[in-house]
Amino acid sequence: MDANQNAGDGLRQVIGFILELDKLKGVTRKTRPLGLTRYENSAEHSWQIALLAASLAHLAPAPVDVDRVIRMLLVHDIGEIDTGDTLVYVEGGWKERKAAELAAVTRIFGMLPDAQGAAYLALWQEFERGESPEARFANAVDRAMPVLLNLANEGQSWRENGISHARVVGRIAAPILEGCPALWAYLEAKLEEARQKGWFGA
Amino acid sequence: MDANQNAGDGLRQVIGFILELDKLKGVTRKTRPLGLTRYENSAEHSWQIALLAASLAHLAPAPVDVDRVIRMLLVHDIGEIDTGDTLVYVEGGWKERKAAELAAVTRIFGMLPDAQGAAYLALWQEFERGESPEARFANAVDRAMPVLLNLANEGQSWRENGISHARVVGRIAAPILEGCPALWAYLEAKLEEARQKGWFGA
Repeated sequence: MDANQNAGDGLRQVIGFILELDKLKGVTRKTRPLGLTRYENSAEHSWQIALLAASLAHLAPAPVDVDRVIRMLLVHDIGEIDTGDTLVYVEGGWKERKAAELAAVTRIFGMLPDAQGAAYLALWQEFERGESPEARFANAVDRAMPVLLNLANEGQSWRENGISHARVVGRIAAPILEGCPALWAYLEAKLEEARQKGWFGA
Repeated sequence: MDANQNAGDGLRQVIGFILELDKLKGVTRKTRPLGLTRYENSAEHSWQIALLAASLAHLAPAPVDVDRVIRMLLVHDIGEIDTGDTLVYVEGGWKERKAAELAAVTRIFGMLPDAQGAAYLALWQEFERGESPEARFANAVDRAMPVLLNLANEGQSWRENGISHARVVGRIAAPILEGCPALWAYLEAKLEEARQKGWFGA
């Protein structure tokens, strides 16, 4: 088999796609990894939440296909390659950002052979719609991870960005309660402790 | 449900495990992400190869359970939390490093409830043994990724570390040919082009 023949298998398209994904390593979030001074990026975040989901799937309120959850989480932030990450607590402009992310993933998944690109796009859209048990669970895990880091980090990104306890709870309580109630019960108590310790920014 | 009750579901153990995993974001490899000056870390690398595997599974020489491949790749580098990353071209000491990594993953997966920890350890060991079709394919993808980055990066880590074309081919040809022959056919031709361009370090 020679290299030209491989082109017919979509190999070159896959490689172009994977090298494009490298850019997600340069998209920074507002949270710092524990013990590091730099900001976390969306690629390593995606890895971590895939493993959080795999480890918490038994606590989902409905049976979930954990492998589809993992795939969803691995692709859910890819649109940020074009748009950058936006703090979940930012208000306004959400609809415009989501449209820009859809344009981005349409471009990036469009680098793949049609069937593959369509499958990734369907996963991305399932996560965004948040309607299936898998998508609800995946959204809960995605929302919970920066909270877990902040709880281990004396509220680093809340303090740096002036985010109040009420704003955190208002933004994450519903999706986490819906997608993983046991996780919300845990976080709710910990967030109250954090509030008493003064770990919020406003 | 209160927070104490959750402890019985292993939630606190899972959270301890996930926060421990944060350390993999600080384990640096020898490759630099495209367009960035810093080194790549093993967490973002694990994310990228999970998606490379998902995108190339149709080229595996035997049918593979791609979801098990993805899980294997998500956990395969976790031992580096205690040992650090070692360039695949370093010679000697391999057996000792693998023993140290096994001790590390035994410690880290041991933070989880027994059944969960055992399942992750089994995945890690399957990858290390490299005997199943899934493990062979996963190993091929893991070996290929830094080569793909170097081919897009004018041989950055080969030049920085004095790695010759012969050493790269000698180390990766067999596992990639075995685990994903079409990928090896592609890389073999590209590596020869890179040699002619002087992208190797020795």
